Amino acid sequence: MNFQSDNAAGVRPDILAAVAAAAGPSVGAYDADDWSLRLDAAYSDVFATACTVIAVSTGTAANALALAAMVPPYGAVVCHTDAHINVDECGAPEFFTGGAKLLLCQGESGKLTPTAVAAATAGFRAGYHQVRPAALSLTQATEAGTVYSPDEVKALTTLAKSRGWAVHMDGARFANAVASLGCHPADVTARAGVDVLSLGVIKNGGMTAEAMVIFDPALVEDIRLRRKRAGQMPSKGRFQAAQLLAYLAENRWLETAAAANAAAARLAAAFGPRVMHAVAANEVFVRLTPSDAGALRSVGAEFYDWGAPDDHLARFVVAWDTPAVAVDGLIAAVRTLG
Amino acid sequence: MNFQSDNAAGVRPDILAAVAAAAGPSVGAYDADDWSLRLDAAYSDVFATACTVIAVSTGTAANALALAAMVPPYGAVVCHTDAHINVDECGAPEFFTGGAKLLLCQGESGKLTPTAVAAATAGFRAGYHQVRPAALSLTQATEAGTVYSPDEVKALTTLAKSRGWAVHMDGARFANAVASLGCHPADVTARAGVDVLSLGVIKNGGMTAEAMVIFDPALVEDIRLRRKRAGQMPSKGRFQAAQLLAYLAENRWLETAAAANAAAARLAAAFGPRVMHAVAANEVFVRLTPSDAGALRSVGAEFYDWGAPDDHLARFVVAWDTPAVAVDGLIAAVRTLG
Amino acid sequence: MNFQSDNAAGVRPDILAAVAAAAGPSVGAYDADDWSLRLDAAYSDVFATACTVIAVSTGTAANALALAAMVPPYGAVVCHTDAHINVDECGAPEFFTGGAKLLLCQGESGKLTPTAVAAATAGFRAGYHQVRPAALSLTQATEAGTVYSPDEVKALTTLAKSRGWAVHMDGARFANAVASLGCHPADVTARAGVDVLSLGVIKNGGMTAEAMVIFDPALVEDIRLRRKRAGQMPSKGRFQAAQLLAYLAENRWLETAAAANAAAARLAAAFGPRVMHAVAANEVFVRLTPSDAGALRSVGAEFYDWGAPDDHLARFVVAWDTPAVAVDGLIAAVRTLG
Amino acid sequence: MNFQSDNAAGVRPDILAAVAAAAGPSVGAYDADDWSLRLDAAYSDVFATACTVIAVSTGTAANALALAAMVPPYGAVVCHTDAHINVDECGAPEFFTGGAKLLLCQGESGKLTPTAVAAATAGFRAGYHQVRPAALSLTQATEAGTVYSPDEVKALTTLAKSRGWAVHMDGARFANAVASLGCHPADVTARAGVDVLSLGVIKNGGMTAEAMVIFDPALVEDIRLRRKRAGQMPSKGRFQAAQLLAYLAENRWLETAAAANAAAARLAAAFGPRVMHAVAANEVFVRLTPSDAGALRSVGAEFYDWGAPDDHLARFVVAWDTPAVAVDGLIAAVRTLG
Repeated sequence: MNFQSDNAAGVRPDILAAVAAAAGPSVGAYDADDWSLRLDAAYSDVFATACTVIAVSTGTAANALALAAMVPPYGAVVCHTDAHINVDECGAPEFFTGGAKLLLCQGESGKLTPTAVAAATAGFRAGYHQVRPAALSLTQATEAGTVYSPDEVKALTTLAKSRGWAVHMDGARFANAVASLGCHPADVTARAGVDVLSLGVIKNGGMTAEAMVIFDPALVEDIRLRRKRAGQMPSKGRFQAAQLLAYLAENRWLETAAAANAAAARLAAAFGPRVMHAVAANEVFVRLTPSDAGALRSVGAEFYDWGAPDDHLARFVVAWDTPAVAVDGLIAAVRTLG
Repeated sequence: MNFQSDNAAGVRPDILAAVAAAAGPSVGAYDADDWSLRLDAAYSDVFATACTVIAVSTGTAANALALAAMVPPYGAVVCHTDAHINVDECGAPEFFTGGAKLLLCQGESGKLTPTAVAAATAGFRAGYHQVRPAALSLTQATEAGTVYSPDEVKALTTLAKSRGWAVHMDGARFANAVASLGCHPADVTARAGVDVLSLGVIKNGGMTAEAMVIFDPALVEDIRLRRKRAGQMPSKGRFQAAQLLAYLAENRWLETAAAANAAAARLAAAFGPRVMHAVAANEVFVRLTPSDAGALRSVGAEFYDWGAPDDHLARFVVAWDTPAVAVDGLIAAVRTLG
Repeated sequence: MNFQSDNAAGVRPDILAAVAAAAGPSVGAYDADDWSLRLDAAYSDVFATACTVIAVSTGTAANALALAAMVPPYGAVVCHTDAHINVDECGAPEFFTGGAKLLLCQGESGKLTPTAVAAATAGFRAGYHQVRPAALSLTQATEAGTVYSPDEVKALTTLAKSRGWAVHMDGARFANAVASLGCHPADVTARAGVDVLSLGVIKNGGMTAEAMVIFDPALVEDIRLRRKRAGQMPSKGRFQAAQLLAYLAENRWLETAAAANAAAARLAAAFGPRVMHAVAANEVFVRLTPSDAGALRSVGAEFYDWGAPDDHLARFVVAWDTPAVAVDGLIAAVRTLG
Repeated sequence: MNFQSDNAAGVRPDILAAVAAAAGPSVGAYDADDWSLRLDAAYSDVFATACTVIAVSTGTAANALALAAMVPPYGAVVCHTDAHINVDECGAPEFFTGGAKLLLCQGESGKLTPTAVAAATAGFRAGYHQVRPAALSLTQATEAGTVYSPDEVKALTTLAKSRGWAVHMDGARFANAVASLGCHPADVTARAGVDVLSLGVIKNGGMTAEAMVIFDPALVEDIRLRRKRAGQMPSKGRFQAAQLLAYLAENRWLETAAAANAAAARLAAAFGPRVMHAVAANEVFVRLTPSDAGALRSVGAEFYDWGAPDDHLARFVVAWDTPAVAVDGLIAAVRTLG
């Protein structure tokens, strides 16, 4: 009953098979192979929008490269206080941007609102004493397991665009968000004003590649140069590209996400009033007393405590390959709690 | 008859199999898996020296992370003018170090000498006007396909250590160098004063992982933090580690390198006086008139022109999986040249 | 009646005279002049502690250089949300440190407390996902015109040292703080655990030089190199050093500060309950309705609105050379308000 | 007989007087004073070209800020091997640009030629493996004491512009170059394609301010933000601006430069065949045996050895205020040499 993280999950068999199938003799190096050359078309098709797709080895790299192309060193990125780019990337955005700032913004259940973003940036004066807000970064699904609706994304990007900011989306769990919304992937990205999507592949069954989906063609060349400079341009790019191509095949990326979401919803129902945020994706955050946490662990449940120790919070993540029996087992254990 | 680059070669079947074998269900994320946890012991055994091994996705990342841990932003790295870190990494060393300089040094056949290094750094004055040389970076095998003997490495590291510099080795083709020298891997690294080796795996049959082999324990923590910050810490680290473990298995890394070296030697013999540098590894650099180059290409040979257009140089690389028939075919074609 | 900022004040006549007196023929360049060479002794005497003093051209440079010597690029600096380094330096700390983060901490009346600092850094986990808190930056006097007592400083530095952090003090208005406290300058710096003091000179009668007072000798060499690299090492250093020497002469730096503080106290008394924070230095922050603000401006008072527009706050700064008549005039005007 | 450097010279009395005259009571801070506001007009008049002028505290800052506005972090700046930006700024260009590279180019007597620049950048390939040359930096007068004619500048900028590069001029001794050429200042800057001139003021009688003269308006905003971020925006800007305004007054900047040039020419005539480069400005580089150097020093001459110890070279610099008697004394001493 491992609910620690989808980060640690297995690999979709067809993605592994795609990697193996790419392992023939010499081909063009550095993205000049048939797999890499097919990426743009495959993703443009799924997103119903012309886009450029670049493989990188981690979500952190995808996020930081996107932001570096969006803001000058004296720029700033507006994001949620809990955003992965702020909390868990060891300062990668600051490194890649040459020292830009993250402007932190609070928001209920992991979500920014136009009001909150406007307030967080209201104090910025013209002149040369202060950094310049230049990008908005949204996380979809959010760090709290909630999702932005297309209208919510649009409202935020509209504010951003009115200020001349670029818009980045950290989509580490983008598939879960789209599956939850039941919308077209473009509805919360290209059609809603997102310029670059860091599309999470690894958590949802991938292996060693994440995708940068770039909708603003003006950013592509800069990202390509920064990617090489960051040591993120693989010589045998076919093995990364093969994963990204397989990921989309036959709609499996949304099927596995939907299944994980459904299991998370079942889990949330079992946790009942302990649940903190509306469970829309594959993460369930709950209030859990130490004794209840201990009870669950004593029957084999693995999960992370969350927040500060005194908060008594816990996070349960359903991965794409979490066995139904593990979910059932956890639900049964939860029902035994007071 | 593809002799363009070992970068574009295939993957050793046992390395691919090792990746597949790692693809089970959830394990610890972020290097807390059984594969990653075995890396240090496996490499310490092969190098007969306690070392720490960290997987990264490219050789550029390995080189730049090592240098960033060795020099302050106002430091400088002494390297050969033709070094990959200078020519082909889009400024990654400058990016990762926060703007340190590369001090370029000429040297016959791609090799630095203590005399040349001393001369290149002789003009540096004490005080605060100039950057501080703080590391030496050697390439083994060199960019010219030659190799440093253990004594040559030792002479250079002795100079470096006497100045208080750290020593990095770019070993993109380290296996070829060791196979050529017939020495113990430690003879040109740990025992010779190298602090960090960027061990090339991909060119010699790997897939998506290179190894940083860190002999100086004082650098490990800094490298780990910079690695995460650079987006080079994979969540599913087992897939990178599995490649690095398989790489060393049953001495295959040196066998494939020796085979490629032998084929390159046969090729060099065929090129005869056209060969520019002593061929010690798997690269052959030759002088080739445009008409001779055309003649070879007309029968199907693929290779890169090298240097400036007027130099009329060409490079032929034998990969670990270059078929013997391709080598034989090229040799036959070379023999038809005037 | 100009109460906008001490930034815009005049220059102490003896400081100007000292600059003129330094304007003789050729002397040693780059700090090898008699003025620069006397700095360490003069400041060590006043601070009753061996220290190294380096002139820079702005307080921003002093702050950023100090922090860059204290934290690695993956480090973090704990500071108050309102700290000048966060709000008004266009990201200089991020630039100079190579992208370190500022960890923002709330605190009443501009002051940090050990409790608040501990809370702000409580969530940081071991491992490689998060930046490492590595320095604490205090502002003395604070951005709210309050001052830390020696005990308060000591309590904060004790926490910092227990975590292995370095301690920086932004002393843009340090003279006002010391004059207010009536303590020895060392009581809130060297004796209290401060490693580097950015000593403001310009606001308190200086011209073009600020002083870095470095108590931790281990930081000196690094700061000197970074200073040159930042374009902050003047060739004719005697003109900067002459200002810093004159600044301390005959205790005038504390006399002018005490006079400004006293005027600010008079002003605060006139504003009465409108005053927001205990006025300990030379700044008075008040709540002021738009009509009251208009009334003051209509009789010639100049001052800045503060905070967000809806906050209806204003700041009045008494400079070292603000004429008594201006203070009296403003007090009279304030008394006419309802 | 101090010929060590114009860096260490005195200050023009009228510049000192201008500083004193600026020392009145409160004015607008941060360039909102009457002196700063007059800079653009004064320089636009002298350069007969609309330009923006920004004061900084050192030539290193002027150079590095200009380059940072011209090249991306993955860019490169072509410059002479002996350029101050390469040799004597402790890596400031690399720091300010975020890690761009300097592409070093040899050239006789300190001068670049279009042929040499073209050769130095000929090997750069399209694609993402290499940094992108993006600016040319010329030094006028050169590090060898020679000067570029307007036609020579134009030939170089024409090449640069044809490649899409920006052009920077390090004019630490620009006045000496213009005085030597007898041309209009615009002939070797704005009219010749220079985008930003780092105009040296300090060596030629200034005190603590250098001028960035920006001819390309597209660079201004970026430079202003980077300047603040670099701690180079003084609060009491009037004292920097007053120096820059006085510098140009009544053509004195060119008169003092012409006088220094003339003295250097007299000195060069005395040195005769020992002189290494055509002496066009205020620096004389000579071959000098250790015994001759000793002979000159024994009679009181002060000067720097130059280059590597075995080169037996020396540099003599005539400052704007070097007394005629010192020049005469040195000439007499030189005539006693064999």
